[in-house]
Amino acid sequence: MVIKKAAVIGLGLIGGSIAAALKKAGIGVIGVDFDDTTLALAKSDEVIDEGLNIGKVIDGTAGLGIFDDISVAFMCLPVSAIASTLEKIMEYIPSGTIITDTGSVKKAVIREVEPVLTEGVAFVGGHPMAGSENSGYKWSRADMFFGAPYILTPTSNTDAEALWTMIKLVKDIGAKPFVMTPEEHDRAVAAVSHLPQIVSTTLVNTVEIFHPEGKVIELAGGGWRDTTRIASSNANMWKDIFVSNKDEILPLLTVFKEQLSAIESAIYEADEEKIKTLFHTAQSYKNRNSLL
Amino acid sequence: MVIKKAAVIGLGLIGGSIAAALKKAGIGVIGVDFDDTTLALAKSDEVIDEGLNIGKVIDGTAGLGIFDDISVAFMCLPVSAIASTLEKIMEYIPSGTIITDTGSVKKAVIREVEPVLTEGVAFVGGHPMAGSENSGYKWSRADMFFGAPYILTPTSNTDAEALWTMIKLVKDIGAKPFVMTPEEHDRAVAAVSHLPQIVSTTLVNTVEIFHPEGKVIELAGGGWRDTTRIASSNANMWKDIFVSNKDEILPLLTVFKEQLSAIESAIYEADEEKIKTLFHTAQSYKNRNSLL
Repeated sequence: MVIKKAAVIGLGLIGGSIAAALKKAGIGVIGVDFDDTTLALAKSDEVIDEGLNIGKVIDGTAGLGIFDDISVAFMCLPVSAIASTLEKIMEYIPSGTIITDTGSVKKAVIREVEPVLTEGVAFVGGHPMAGSENSGYKWSRADMFFGAPYILTPTSNTDAEALWTMIKLVKDIGAKPFVMTPEEHDRAVAAVSHLPQIVSTTLVNTVEIFHPEGKVIELAGGGWRDTTRIASSNANMWKDIFVSNKDEILPLLTVFKEQLSAIESAIYEADEEKIKTLFHTAQSYKNRNSLL
Repeated sequence: MVIKKAAVIGLGLIGGSIAAALKKAGIGVIGVDFDDTTLALAKSDEVIDEGLNIGKVIDGTAGLGIFDDISVAFMCLPVSAIASTLEKIMEYIPSGTIITDTGSVKKAVIREVEPVLTEGVAFVGGHPMAGSENSGYKWSRADMFFGAPYILTPTSNTDAEALWTMIKLVKDIGAKPFVMTPEEHDRAVAAVSHLPQIVSTTLVNTVEIFHPEGKVIELAGGGWRDTTRIASSNANMWKDIFVSNKDEILPLLTVFKEQLSAIESAIYEADEEKIKTLFHTAQSYKNRNSLL
């Protein structure tokens, strides 16, 4: 299937970047958002060809045929809003459309989305591994996904042609497609994304307790800057992710606390060999699994 | 005092960068290291004017007057090696010289260094808040300290003129001087440097336990990259720091574990308001205390 036109529902950091990347790949974009100012801005930025207020879509004011020529719809919303929003706009989405999402958990989203789908519409769960600690349209950019992993999570219900179309589309926006089950996805991102987020936020909250006035941050170097960058991330987005993926996150936290106690004991006992071993283990893992 | 010539003892990441920055500021540099290859490289890079092997300094082969025209000596060594190395070279350092160090803890270093100092030599503890996860001369660079905080920690024994000279020198290499007590320093860096290091290393070690084969890292985005960057840091340097500063680090770890348990409980109980509150606390602290 050749994609000529797409709808992007939710023009935040990720949706705005998806829209911009699709446009850059020569695909027409209908942008849908609740905020008219964002829609006007995205249109003047030429990130979307047409803007629709989600309220007008839902109440039918926008008209019945609004999505008639789209081939794919990206649901770029917080995890808890994906299925409920889709349900409200489903009647306007024509048969043959591929629906995908960009949520950071996949089992929970798919469980909620699949019952909502109408006949002839295909769903392929997706998760681009890119973003930033900032949120909102103004931070979006067309090259957000360039070189980034982009996970697709078909299930036994997923149409094979729809999956292939999505793989091609992911490549068209410059990202690297990875295909895995929703379960594999949720386990993997709990480790490489959700746990780092919890740790980063907890690091900042700990330092605030000792240094509430914050003068100490003037002394910080790159270590503080980098380990706490994502502590500024969007709370509404993350609360959904943590709650939806708690079965994968909680065992990681248990082991994290054990590992933290191991280094704490080594420091308490001034066990230099043990401290070195813990460092070498981390170094070795980093060296074997470089992101470069 | 106008500094015309300095000795830099230890040409690793920090010492190499100090030497390069001093040269750039028009100051002559004698470089001292145990590794002849590093000395030859630093000389051919014009980062030092003259190279001396530390072995030859200690056994007297290099001659008695080798440091006669220096005004300042930078001890750029792991924390546990600063006082012991200084003791061995002290007889060659002329009266009137300012000795400083770049160690990441200050109470322990000063406690060990002060008894070693000879009459007429001034000591000013120092700590540039810059560096990287890499170690060794080859990663050093003249602009390492540009715009970075550089902490100086005088005690009641510190000569006032020597402190002023060091403040000026810190500015000459492009860094921002901060003056505080060794105790204030050790408490501050435990929070903004030592705790982030422990947390970053522990994060990697936890993920390794769940994903020893490491394929999962292919899926990682910027959050993993940034929160774990410093997990590649030098184990030998850090074991010294942790053991020397454990009185400040251990209380932080206790509170970190409490804060981690708070977010863990909130996730377990799907308490979205509590998760949001923990995020907002961290966000607000970050916003109030930006590094920019």
